[in-house]
Amino acid sequence: MRMIILDEEQRKEYEMPEGLSVIECLLRYDLPVRNDCAAKGNCGKCRVRTIAGNLSPETEIEREHLSKEELDQGWFLACQRAAKSDVTLRLSYGRDAGYRKTMLAEKEDALAGDPVVQRGVFSMSEPDLSDQVPDWERLLAAVGGSVSREAIPRGLLSALPELLRKEDFTVTVTTVANRLAAVTPGKSERRPFGAVCDIGTTTLAVYLVDLATGITRGAAAKTNPQVSFGTDVISRINSVSEDFSALEKMHGDIVAAIAELMAGLLEENDLSADDLFAMTVVGNTTMSHLFAKADPRRLATAPFVFCFKQGLTFRGRDFPLPMHPEGEVFLLPNVAGYVGSDTVGVMLSVDILNRSGCAIAVDLGTNGEIVLSGNGRVLACSTAAGPAFEGAKIKNGMRAGAGAIEKVRISDGEIELKIIDEAPPAGICGSGLIDAAAQMLKAGLIDASGCLLPPDTDFPLAENLRRRLRKGDQGLDEFVLAAKGEYGNDADVVISQKDIRELQLGKGAVAAGITVLLREMNITAEEVDRLFLAGAFGNYMDVRHAVMLGLFPGISVEKVEAVGNAAAYGGRLALLSREKRAAAEELAEKTEHIELSTSAAFYDIFMREMNFPG
Amino acid sequence: MRMIILDEEQRKEYEMPEGLSVIECLLRYDLPVRNDCAAKGNCGKCRVRTIAGNLSPETEIEREHLSKEELDQGWFLACQRAAKSDVTLRLSYGRDAGYRKTMLAEKEDALAGDPVVQRGVFSMSEPDLSDQVPDWERLLAAVGGSVSREAIPRGLLSALPELLRKEDFTVTVTTVANRLAAVTPGKSERRPFGAVCDIGTTTLAVYLVDLATGITRGAAAKTNPQVSFGTDVISRINSVSEDFSALEKMHGDIVAAIAELMAGLLEENDLSADDLFAMTVVGNTTMSHLFAKADPRRLATAPFVFCFKQGLTFRGRDFPLPMHPEGEVFLLPNVAGYVGSDTVGVMLSVDILNRSGCAIAVDLGTNGEIVLSGNGRVLACSTAAGPAFEGAKIKNGMRAGAGAIEKVRISDGEIELKIIDEAPPAGICGSGLIDAAAQMLKAGLIDASGCLLPPDTDFPLAENLRRRLRKGDQGLDEFVLAAKGEYGNDADVVISQKDIRELQLGKGAVAAGITVLLREMNITAEEVDRLFLAGAFGNYMDVRHAVMLGLFPGISVEKVEAVGNAAAYGGRLALLSREKRAAAEELAEKTEHIELSTSAAFYDIFMREMNFPG
Repeated sequence: MRMIILDEEQRKEYEMPEGLSVIECLLRYDLPVRNDCAAKGNCGKCRVRTIAGNLSPETEIEREHLSKEELDQGWFLACQRAAKSDVTLRLSYGRDAGYRKTMLAEKEDALAGDPVVQRGVFSMSEPDLSDQVPDWERLLAAVGGSVSREAIPRGLLSALPELLRKEDFTVTVTTVANRLAAVTPGKSERRPFGAVCDIGTTTLAVYLVDLATGITRGAAAKTNPQVSFGTDVISRINSVSEDFSALEKMHGDIVAAIAELMAGLLEENDLSADDLFAMTVVGNTTMSHLFAKADPRRLATAPFVFCFKQGLTFRGRDFPLPMHPEGEVFLLPNVAGYVGSDTVGVMLSVDILNRSGCAIAVDLGTNGEIVLSGNGRVLACSTAAGPAFEGAKIKNGMRAGAGAIEKVRISDGEIELKIIDEAPPAGICGSGLIDAAAQMLKAGLIDASGCLLPPDTDFPLAENLRRRLRKGDQGLDEFVLAAKGEYGNDADVVISQKDIRELQLGKGAVAAGITVLLREMNITAEEVDRLFLAGAFGNYMDVRHAVMLGLFPGISVEKVEAVGNAAAYGGRLALLSREKRAAAEELAEKTEHIELSTSAAFYDIFMREMNFPG
Repeated sequence: MRMIILDEEQRKEYEMPEGLSVIECLLRYDLPVRNDCAAKGNCGKCRVRTIAGNLSPETEIEREHLSKEELDQGWFLACQRAAKSDVTLRLSYGRDAGYRKTMLAEKEDALAGDPVVQRGVFSMSEPDLSDQVPDWERLLAAVGGSVSREAIPRGLLSALPELLRKEDFTVTVTTVANRLAAVTPGKSERRPFGAVCDIGTTTLAVYLVDLATGITRGAAAKTNPQVSFGTDVISRINSVSEDFSALEKMHGDIVAAIAELMAGLLEENDLSADDLFAMTVVGNTTMSHLFAKADPRRLATAPFVFCFKQGLTFRGRDFPLPMHPEGEVFLLPNVAGYVGSDTVGVMLSVDILNRSGCAIAVDLGTNGEIVLSGNGRVLACSTAAGPAFEGAKIKNGMRAGAGAIEKVRISDGEIELKIIDEAPPAGICGSGLIDAAAQMLKAGLIDASGCLLPPDTDFPLAENLRRRLRKGDQGLDEFVLAAKGEYGNDADVVISQKDIRELQLGKGAVAAGITVLLREMNITAEEVDRLFLAGAFGNYMDVRHAVMLGLFPGISVEKVEAVGNAAAYGGRLALLSREKRAAAEELAEKTEHIELSTSAAFYDIFMREMNFPG
């Protein structure tokens, strides 16, 4: 039997000897699992989650340590169970950190689906003088009632008679949303594939999915080429206002970039364009407009009436993409001008429509989209989280790449840094900034109002910290995280007072957005039982530090579940299930958009929430 | 008031003074009307048919002379009525000849329709901060529930915001089969147009139809360019068998020819391609296959399983045709390999599905398609009428063009010819051959078995006829219709014994087809109350002579109604009415195809029916 271990970076397989408990297998391969009570079932720390496969039955001891919900979600104690088949497991790193981490987008588990693409093998009786049913009608009758009689794939009628006769009237038929899309002779072993395309303002990501198994077979990303028209959505919209031909150009650019990524994924998997029958697309409302070549100009000016909201369906042949011309492209619906189909994807991913209780979903990037569900309502707002979370507009800010400080610990006057690729520190990324601020708050280097201690402070500080306080450019106070040469670095890496202010703006906006939604629904933060944190940033950020800074006011850390790129995962759900696709439409229709810019309460709350918890 | 007179060649308008009866108006303009009783209402010969407009009430005298059915069809006595509005009339030439002639295809009367293309003007409220419904959803809501949310015309989303705002949120919307096809700003006065395309093996005809009024605005025809691949369907199919690329070529040729005719009609009417939103296509099954680019090869070989039967729907953009890309092309369904959508068009035209009683429809060309309806069944067969009816394979045969003898009278030993364009006779066309044979039969020049008198016959004959009998090439008897120089002609025009035999083959096949269908339905010819004769040939042929020759065995001349190009008229019905389009599908489904080549009885009957009536 095989044991497959998933974590955020990879997927590994191990041979699993018969008769061993799961914890014995994990320990055998030196995999990280808590074993405080030496597998006696006392500590309840060896929790692991099954993604697929069968285990021995649940035990009484597990029911003591795990909630019903956790058991239903596949959590179990590794000391209590043995595998009965190949199993796929996720270890509980994140859980140990005090919050959950589920990394939806990288999930390799098969999804029980009802994809819009179906493939089947059909055999027909051979015609003779007593059975002169024409070829097309013979095929339709074999495929059955639900397939449309009206949509005939281009070129099929010229090829059909030979196709049917090549393997004695047995053919493999691919349908897309009840349209006949492809017919090949005989019984084909090839499986139909789909793609999910997540169009971020900055980054474009494409995932290749096996539609028969639901498994993601590859992912590829690149910078959204539209950045040449501006780094944010407003500058892209303004480009169209200045010159309408920019719409055509940006549409072409993004489609070409998707095509390039898709072609690469297909090649890596020995597939051809004709194997790809469906694509779902998520993105913010502006990206959705640019992909659909819809006039985006009114997204930027009152009364903010944009061009379309509903999910749009296209054919493969409508785009110069490496996919089957009869395939389908589905762009998920938008909610509002700044709550796009990516947010609908997040809502789908965490099944916000069918949850009992109250939940919040936050998709954190340059904009923060916030969703609150409960009491039969779904509310959503968008707030300018600001660039700080992405390391932009920060003095030594940088993207999360080699040399970026991503984790910071300050304890007993000592500073511990974790630097991406263990390179000399060159700057600080968003998650590093959160860490640094939280640790500086804890160490007393900044106060609740966000003021950094001046170099001449009389606050009691370890010498190692005190000597790092200084006046920087323009007389602004700053804190030296890594002095030049300290880690082989060429220059100082500092946190300035202005950096803290940028962070406060972003944190204040997100916290105020959450608070406004709670008020609108007339509930308290205590009544929220889960906060889903979506976005790549949520994966890297230490959620405990974000909570410490008050990003999610009133939400305790145990309630937070970091779900990774949930927007793309929602796209994958819509790719694999027509029910989910319908749910996306329902969500977009049902969600009430709360416009923060016209909310009287918002600015007061925002000002207050810029402070850190006391 | 105006009086509009339709006949087969033209449409003429006359000013109609108030207070005159219709017969007085007709006589005033020297229009052909029988007036045997000087408008006293005694003779009943001044029958005329109203196509549109209001007349004074029906009189008792009319009820004496006209049947209830005729009155319902608009027949009236010109001496009994006066016009109450503009009227459109058809004079009763044909009726006087003993049979009806209705010339469906040239009918200019408006058809009460429910065309697949609809155009309407919609006004929306202007959006503001309290009404932020996006533009596309705003438009959908205004247009109403039946329009598909899924089909968005290409390019609309980039243009829609400007389109809506150009005339204060009033737009003209064109829908095609519940798909949104075009949106223009403000209230448009332009009307949507459609086309009917009748693809004959030899001749291609296109009609331009105003979809708002149902009126045909122009017609154009040219030779089917596929003739370069052979003059008959079998040689075209064989071309594909020899080289499959011939399919692509013949498909391209016919589409290009349609495009040329359509472009000409649009230009003549000051219309653009974007005004044309729908096209219906009729043709025999092979022509339907070549138009749809479907493999036709199995139409020619047992078990004669062809590629498709049902009506097919395409978009305008699927073809390089001068029409709106979002428009629709509908190819009417076929019944069998040699009973195509043209025959379905004929059945639609004469409303064979809803007739009470029994009726026959014959579409006469190279092939004769025969339909019999009655007792809740519809039967159809195809029979090789042979080329004689089209003047082919006839010694001096020619198409119906300048110089063709089209009518022949033999009386008192004298011959009277009518020659197209009054040119010197160069040959004889199909209708001329029928006339000649019938008149020769009447004059005793041929006997019931089809034998032409030899030159040395002792049958009593006028000298003018006797001297025209001679031995021709290969010793075959022949009859000189026009001796060289007699009418300024360069050469003799003759009817040979072989010509008579060719005619007998064709007439025998049609007559046998009718007889087999009657037997299959177990009724007699007397029970048939109407025979519709379709096809251009039926327009020119003197039906009395065809009856004389036994083409329609047992059917008396009064029952015959020549309906002209009813196939194209059926295409027009399907263009103007969704109900008729559905009826076409129902007809194709319901019609039972009787395969004559496997009918044991057929050959016996065929041999017998080759004889002329005794």
